[in-house]
Amino acid sequence: MPIPIAQLTHVVEALQSALPGRVNTDPAELASYTIDRSGHRSAGVPLAAVSPQTIEDVQTVCRIASAARVPLVSRGAGTGLAGGAVAGAGEIVLSLTDMDRILEISPENRLAVVQPGILNCQLNSVLADYRLWWAPDPASKDISTVGGNIAMNAGGLLCAKYGVTREAVLALKVVLADGTLLSVGHRTVKGVTGYDLSALMIGSEGTLGIIVEATLKLQPVPEGDTVTIGAFFDSVEEAAAAAGTVTTSGLVPSIMELMDGRTLECVAKYTGQDLLSSGGAYLLIQSDGPAAADTAGRIAELALNAGGRVETTTDPAESQRLLDLRRSAFPALEAMGTMLVEDIAVPRSKMTEAFAAIRRLEDKYGLVIATTCHAGDGNLHPTFVFDGTDVPPKVWSAAGELFATALELGGTLTGEHGVGLLKRKWLQDELGQAQYAIQRRIKEVFDPHNLLNPGKVFLDGTLTV
Amino acid sequence: MPIPIAQLTHVVEALQSALPGRVNTDPAELASYTIDRSGHRSAGVPLAAVSPQTIEDVQTVCRIASAARVPLVSRGAGTGLAGGAVAGAGEIVLSLTDMDRILEISPENRLAVVQPGILNCQLNSVLADYRLWWAPDPASKDISTVGGNIAMNAGGLLCAKYGVTREAVLALKVVLADGTLLSVGHRTVKGVTGYDLSALMIGSEGTLGIIVEATLKLQPVPEGDTVTIGAFFDSVEEAAAAAGTVTTSGLVPSIMELMDGRTLECVAKYTGQDLLSSGGAYLLIQSDGPAAADTAGRIAELALNAGGRVETTTDPAESQRLLDLRRSAFPALEAMGTMLVEDIAVPRSKMTEAFAAIRRLEDKYGLVIATTCHAGDGNLHPTFVFDGTDVPPKVWSAAGELFATALELGGTLTGEHGVGLLKRKWLQDELGQAQYAIQRRIKEVFDPHNLLNPGKVFLDGTLTV
Repeated sequence: MPIPIAQLTHVVEALQSALPGRVNTDPAELASYTIDRSGHRSAGVPLAAVSPQTIEDVQTVCRIASAARVPLVSRGAGTGLAGGAVAGAGEIVLSLTDMDRILEISPENRLAVVQPGILNCQLNSVLADYRLWWAPDPASKDISTVGGNIAMNAGGLLCAKYGVTREAVLALKVVLADGTLLSVGHRTVKGVTGYDLSALMIGSEGTLGIIVEATLKLQPVPEGDTVTIGAFFDSVEEAAAAAGTVTTSGLVPSIMELMDGRTLECVAKYTGQDLLSSGGAYLLIQSDGPAAADTAGRIAELALNAGGRVETTTDPAESQRLLDLRRSAFPALEAMGTMLVEDIAVPRSKMTEAFAAIRRLEDKYGLVIATTCHAGDGNLHPTFVFDGTDVPPKVWSAAGELFATALELGGTLTGEHGVGLLKRKWLQDELGQAQYAIQRRIKEVFDPHNLLNPGKVFLDGTLTV
Repeated sequence: MPIPIAQLTHVVEALQSALPGRVNTDPAELASYTIDRSGHRSAGVPLAAVSPQTIEDVQTVCRIASAARVPLVSRGAGTGLAGGAVAGAGEIVLSLTDMDRILEISPENRLAVVQPGILNCQLNSVLADYRLWWAPDPASKDISTVGGNIAMNAGGLLCAKYGVTREAVLALKVVLADGTLLSVGHRTVKGVTGYDLSALMIGSEGTLGIIVEATLKLQPVPEGDTVTIGAFFDSVEEAAAAAGTVTTSGLVPSIMELMDGRTLECVAKYTGQDLLSSGGAYLLIQSDGPAAADTAGRIAELALNAGGRVETTTDPAESQRLLDLRRSAFPALEAMGTMLVEDIAVPRSKMTEAFAAIRRLEDKYGLVIATTCHAGDGNLHPTFVFDGTDVPPKVWSAAGELFATALELGGTLTGEHGVGLLKRKWLQDELGQAQYAIQRRIKEVFDPHNLLNPGKVFLDGTLTV
């Protein structure tokens, strides 16, 4: 039942009165909240964007919106790839980027307490002075917020060694739709009182509560020189097999990234390098910590035995060159057309089968699908490249088959980007009907009127209550 | 509303008919299910104990019990310290120890799939052949099940370096009260589809569902010699400060255990060693992995500078001697009387304050409280030792003050033992009313008729539906 416009105007006025100077209603600026990095754009613009400065501000916004049953979309830097933080007509944006302070750094407890809006890279730049480090390392770390990383349970390049965001969060303060403030999790390393609501919040994509403060588990910065290995292989199958050998051997690289032949073609075209004579796939590996050199030596040998042309270096400039090959993948693809970046994960032993399935989909649909892969953890980013701004129907058809393949291989629709708007259609295929129903009921426990990021994650906006 | 006895008899008969030979109704054997290692004993004995062999068996038991609204208490080896798996009158025990098979070990995916009833040590003994290892390391690992470790989110000695059980579980199969089978979590390293119900199950103490299969995240066995350090200090304050210096330095020992003077007194008496001339507190530290020697050398120096009398060794017999001092703590306390082992955790910087509070409680109540502590993570086990079998009221009074102190210091009632029956009274103090209410409603989502381990974790058995 749509809310009468007079009432919506009243809500915006109430927000302006409660948080003077912090409510944006400029249509041009509001339009910036209708997109993220997924390519999705909402049909309408939100009613207003509020920029709270304190937890109390967030509670106030929630109370006002909740009383009028107006939906709230919380948002960090808007770097998501699944449409999880885009807002549309009739919604209020809760923009958390002004809540960007570090409240505490405690080396004796190896933790930091931060507001959600601080950028991942800003936090880590401050922590470096303490020889400490917050491990979550999404590719977006220079432009994404800690709160956004937590809301999406962000992954990245370092997860096989250092874990995902869930492992790097001790406790959260969360505001519920009705303005209630909850403190979940523990400031301690261990704590088992009741259900783990902190883990439940992490990755909940703004649908259960607004993360307003986070107590982060820090790690000491690894000591010693990082060693970088670049290896070309004849085929992606060979490269994936080499990565598998590394995992099976029990060696733990910090980074193990794979680029397929299609990606190499695009990078070659983009950078003007002659990469294709080097091989049909590229594996980039780094090892860090006190045993970095020994680990790297053994990994290089495994890669060589698996058919790789291997370079190993600790020289910063040489390392940079090997890394840049990987880093140029997305700019190169972007230069070729519009991208839809997919994000399946499969058990590591199934990577070769996943690559074969992608090749079949390219042929079947006549599409370009260039794939980079976090080979240390089996997370593939098959990237559809096409002309025009709208995703062609055949791309969605191929994506649907891709997801089905991921599930058949024992994997998942999304390793690190989240469900957002883009994968709602397939969520129930993965969870099954019974678990899907339970997840919906958990949403109702936290947000009985479906006001927090409604329509995200779950396909139908209407809950069962 | 109590269920008529005729109906209960019918339930037992239905179970016997569905699972012939697997339903135990011998009163003497049923009595063994009324206790665990907490000291608690239920007033009555359960109706029956069922030992399922398959997931389908568990579903059958749940359906029969659920239809008759008879409560189910799932149980592993019964080694809990909080009364979480004790059963009483009118309840059915679901004993999972016969479901103890390893279903898969996959070195290429660094995972194992197991049934819940396998002992932690049995699993690790098999994994050792693959140079792999499941990291959860509760003191009970020789006698506790993997399912029990997961149900309690078990901790142990290695958590500061290797994490708690939650970090070592990828996915679970869970049977709900009505017999529904859910698969939660992911077989992949990463996966962000929907809410993290796997983390929600871990540590839920049998109140949300029955864990019938677990996909475990494995680690390579650390390479190189483990180095052991033993250090006596004049006082527990000095020893705690030394441990704090190690943490703040960024060094990561695998084990860092502290024993206070009261514990040393008991061990001296028990073993006949002259420990008290050595000092008033003992710190046991181990470092492992490829940099073990370097790390140990730096830790030993820090301990020396902090006033410790330090021994460092890689000799197995010498290491054993240093470890045995710590290992003899509980046998020594047990020899002094009846024990109530408490389990608070505090931020590591607050350990000294926690020890001071314990000393004050000893004086105030005229009690013996001997404390061992996982000093790497701030988890203290203040152990009340008293005469007789029942916990004297003044011990509970002192325990209540201890919990209040833990919360004041930013800590928790229970670092690793769980809430069970023993800490229900204080749970709401830690969670707060709003979070407590939400946790209760989550319980209702999974178990609307409150049939799974009712009366555990939450004080009042009656739910809000």
